[in-house]
Amino acid sequence: MPDAPPRLRTENRDGTAIATLCRPDGSNGLDRAAADALHTWAEDVSAAAEGGTIRVAVLRNEGFAFSVGGDLRAFDASADFAEELRYVATRLHEALKILGAMPLPLVVAVDGVVAGAGVGIVMAADVAVASASSKFRMAYLGVGFSPDGGGSWQLARRLGHARAAEFALSNRVMRADEALSLGMVSRVVAVDDFETAVDELTTQLAGAPKEAVAETLRLLRTAGSRSLDEHLDDEARSIVRLSRTPDGVEGVAAFLGKRQPAFS
Amino acid sequence: MPDAPPRLRTENRDGTAIATLCRPDGSNGLDRAAADALHTWAEDVSAAAEGGTIRVAVLRNEGFAFSVGGDLRAFDASADFAEELRYVATRLHEALKILGAMPLPLVVAVDGVVAGAGVGIVMAADVAVASASSKFRMAYLGVGFSPDGGGSWQLARRLGHARAAEFALSNRVMRADEALSLGMVSRVVAVDDFETAVDELTTQLAGAPKEAVAETLRLLRTAGSRSLDEHLDDEARSIVRLSRTPDGVEGVAAFLGKRQPAFS
Amino acid sequence: MPDAPPRLRTENRDGTAIATLCRPDGSNGLDRAAADALHTWAEDVSAAAEGGTIRVAVLRNEGFAFSVGGDLRAFDASADFAEELRYVATRLHEALKILGAMPLPLVVAVDGVVAGAGVGIVMAADVAVASASSKFRMAYLGVGFSPDGGGSWQLARRLGHARAAEFALSNRVMRADEALSLGMVSRVVAVDDFETAVDELTTQLAGAPKEAVAETLRLLRTAGSRSLDEHLDDEARSIVRLSRTPDGVEGVAAFLGKRQPAFS
Repeated sequence: MPDAPPRLRTENRDGTAIATLCRPDGSNGLDRAAADALHTWAEDVSAAAEGGTIRVAVLRNEGFAFSVGGDLRAFDASADFAEELRYVATRLHEALKILGAMPLPLVVAVDGVVAGAGVGIVMAADVAVASASSKFRMAYLGVGFSPDGGGSWQLARRLGHARAAEFALSNRVMRADEALSLGMVSRVVAVDDFETAVDELTTQLAGAPKEAVAETLRLLRTAGSRSLDEHLDDEARSIVRLSRTPDGVEGVAAFLGKRQPAFS
Repeated sequence: MPDAPPRLRTENRDGTAIATLCRPDGSNGLDRAAADALHTWAEDVSAAAEGGTIRVAVLRNEGFAFSVGGDLRAFDASADFAEELRYVATRLHEALKILGAMPLPLVVAVDGVVAGAGVGIVMAADVAVASASSKFRMAYLGVGFSPDGGGSWQLARRLGHARAAEFALSNRVMRADEALSLGMVSRVVAVDDFETAVDELTTQLAGAPKEAVAETLRLLRTAGSRSLDEHLDDEARSIVRLSRTPDGVEGVAAFLGKRQPAFS
Repeated sequence: MPDAPPRLRTENRDGTAIATLCRPDGSNGLDRAAADALHTWAEDVSAAAEGGTIRVAVLRNEGFAFSVGGDLRAFDASADFAEELRYVATRLHEALKILGAMPLPLVVAVDGVVAGAGVGIVMAADVAVASASSKFRMAYLGVGFSPDGGGSWQLARRLGHARAAEFALSNRVMRADEALSLGMVSRVVAVDDFETAVDELTTQLAGAPKEAVAETLRLLRTAGSRSLDEHLDDEARSIVRLSRTPDGVEGVAAFLGKRQPAFS
């Protein structure tokens, strides 16, 4: 069995799971190997999150692109273009479903070109940080395709229909600052400060109280699909429950004692 | 039978259906004749879209206003104000439902005053382009009415409740640049460049691959009413299906051959 | 029975119900007395709104903070921290449900620090006006808690997930101008102009046609939970009905007669 081609380099360090898109050509085009690697990472991180050994997950890139999207050349070289595309899209979508249900924050750190499914992956993040030189493009229409990776869902909900349709149908390039103003990413950082900013963010999140982070994410993720009244009841149950956990007790004691909390 | 009063001038050219609001007084106030004309145009364009002869629809205006909204003077001159208003609002809403379900982009090109139902019509667009001198106002509260034309639905979803309620309840005028920043329109263009920008946009959209455009719009339009997981499954089915269409095959071949695609 | 500690000073004046958070230490921390006072005010205003004696409700603050959120010291001094928190959160949430269903505008006027549940209360407003020096912070994560007061629901829907999660998980301070750009508040006003701006807004809203205001709010509030097609039908019924009310008849007559309307 040959070695898997390099697509995703993963490591766990200080409670943080880091996956780096590392395709040698720098494109991070998504082929079968890349989709499988992302799916495996999602399953591993999800299991580690449940087991309590991981507190933050970070997906980042080497090369000129975070990802140019689906690797059309690889699909074309396969036995059946459409079947290969189906495999990669489905595998990627399964990975995104797993990542979106994890009880910990997914940070996506983007430095470079983001196109096609890459745009959807960025918006699957809980916190997305982009370097100021990053650029976004849907690209699908250029080859007669429609969006995948959740891109059309995220764009419509965040930008509103008029801006989402303009971006997707014009197939234009969007700069990082516009992506920030439209809520596609959480923060934009100057290129020189990018590594430091991602490290600081990751460290801060890894040190935050674990159950409170998980509950905050759960509440934010469910807000779009239920009424405010239902949500208020859930919020009340959640904050009361957390106040009885060791981290909640420590947080309050530290606040009242005017000292820094030491969360578990 | 007398001629219908001039309200909407329509033409089909190069695969584009163009309707120009052209009421002689320049107000483009919406009376029975205008609502009927918009409804007929919506039905005609929808049929032509299904038949494949039209690829883009454009709604634009002559005169000082895109539309000042309902023509209160006409309603007052009718046998029954409320019944006339009911007819016009219902007819307009039927037209908007038809336009919003078409498998092609509706471009709304706004140059001037937009008030009342005009605001809702602009936000019914897939891509809305406004000249920089355009101005928006809800206006309903000034006469003791509530919004129609879908305006309250669009505002609440795009601006969030705090900004939507402020705009509607203050009854203030909003300039084009603010409307852009709030996602009410897709683009704002300097007055001198407006005609050219609308023409270029229309030409670009008319040349885009038809089924991919239709699928992109369908996905964007359904995003607000279902979960991300459901949407991901639909996206995967759609992109795989499109990859087998003539435009998808041509798009990929052109990409791999580093040439411009020739879509059908 | 001792006097209730000062938490909320209420008065009705010129059809406006005004409640001023007035805890002597200026923090407007939310304890049992504050939650009870807000709940009582919500019930009183709601009853007065139905009775027609009140047309606008205003919630504002004295002191350095609009509200720092839950009063952890008070919870800690109670017999059971979690039970006291449960009482206060539940009581506050009941108040927010009542306020959010009133047929009149709730104006929240914020001058100072807004933290924890205070953030949710601000976003429960129909129109939220903030002084330029106001500052917002979620704060929950600092003590190991998750959001309440509807904050997580409002943030997710208005900011989109990437910006909402960044704000909540970073636990950072947000200035008023950013809160405006993200739709958390409706307007930001210079500190020196704040009182005047709130008074003018309140006067304008109190003079607006009552049923039209109520219907506009009802339509804006329901937009997020139903389809555009359903909403269009409701809008048409509403505008036709209002055109037959005394305010609708007067509004049209004034418009046609080119005079100011005299609403009831």
